[in-house]
Amino acid sequence: MSRRLFDLAGADPNLRFSPYCWRTKLALAHKGLPVETIPWRFTEKDAIAFSGQERVPVLVDGEKTIADSWAIACYLEDAYPDRPSLFGGATGRAPTRFINNWADTVLNLGIIRFVLADILQVTDPKDREYFRASREKRFGTTIETYCADRENHLPAFRQSLVPLRITLAAQPYLAGEQPAYADYIVFGSFQWARCTSPFALLAPDDPIFAWRERMLDAFDGMARRAMAA
Amino acid sequence: MSRRLFDLAGADPNLRFSPYCWRTKLALAHKGLPVETIPWRFTEKDAIAFSGQERVPVLVDGEKTIADSWAIACYLEDAYPDRPSLFGGATGRAPTRFINNWADTVLNLGIIRFVLADILQVTDPKDREYFRASREKRFGTTIETYCADRENHLPAFRQSLVPLRITLAAQPYLAGEQPAYADYIVFGSFQWARCTSPFALLAPDDPIFAWRERMLDAFDGMARRAMAA
Repeated sequence: MSRRLFDLAGADPNLRFSPYCWRTKLALAHKGLPVETIPWRFTEKDAIAFSGQERVPVLVDGEKTIADSWAIACYLEDAYPDRPSLFGGATGRAPTRFINNWADTVLNLGIIRFVLADILQVTDPKDREYFRASREKRFGTTIETYCADRENHLPAFRQSLVPLRITLAAQPYLAGEQPAYADYIVFGSFQWARCTSPFALLAPDDPIFAWRERMLDAFDGMARRAMAA
Repeated sequence: MSRRLFDLAGADPNLRFSPYCWRTKLALAHKGLPVETIPWRFTEKDAIAFSGQERVPVLVDGEKTIADSWAIACYLEDAYPDRPSLFGGATGRAPTRFINNWADTVLNLGIIRFVLADILQVTDPKDREYFRASREKRFGTTIETYCADRENHLPAFRQSLVPLRITLAAQPYLAGEQPAYADYIVFGSFQWARCTSPFALLAPDDPIFAWRERMLDAFDGMARRAMAA
């Protein structure tokens, strides 16, 4: 059965930086499911029109098409129940959704101030006008202005990570003794930053830093080997 | 076997307002374990000295003494495995800890600005000097100054609830189809506010408001029947 993932790429097709696509790639690795990734750019809306929406990740699994990283994780968990669990059952899935929503809003909105200008530099040239216009509309200012004083925002960003920090000081992974989907959610955000920007989000003595190192080593260093700009 | 819980009380011994004690009382109800609650005041450190620390909740379960709401929840889950599960297994417990840490920091620190002055009014007279001094040291200002412009902080507080709001718009409880410990954690914070202050933290059309109503109805209205100042 063919399995294909439309995966956001930059000017270099090997640069794959979407936090949501990273969640899906790690979920597929967790399930032991091989996948062919297809580089996709922001403006290639036509290429994924068959999915009924305009964003990646889009997973085509045999006859099934699923969009949205959370929907894909739930699909994989339900379609492959005999593979290692992403959630550990319904009572693990539900609180993991809170973590998903925290990452989508608090974490990603925190990170984007540090990396947005750098992301623009690595996007495909054909995407840049769209990327600039859509982000400048969202943030109400130019990308350069939005990111200009990023160092000043670092203390508040690191403070916003307190719930994550004290959790990872108490247990090796968000999912417990071993990584699972809760970890892929949050790691995807840090991998997004790592692939696009040299900016140091975390202090080396932060328990989140050590966890990120463990995640970079997972699945034979899958995320560490990935191209970073 | 005797089971006793030291439970923070106000000037009226029936006013029980600790968010952490509410977590434990709801966890005990979830497990179907009856408990005798003992009203306790902030300055009664001697009464719980046997627990090796100075804060409630303290649960005495037969020969066992356990302090700290998270430790108590883990104890109850492990000691009563045949009762309804609080976490749904290890893979539910781990991400629930993130929610616990989010509530302890983001949520409770958000709420306290709206209720701190009101809490002072309902504390036992013998606690008030201690309560004022410890909180004014923590916040670096008088309680009255800290709470004076609370309405101005309401938009930012409600914004901080976004991860909670979108989760509860998508599923009836944090723990899924039925409430479990993830819900007791977060509800404990809202019950703390409800028991001590008339201030309206939530708009009536907020999905969190509807969830709070369901939680007030849980266990035959246990939390709704509780005394509020």
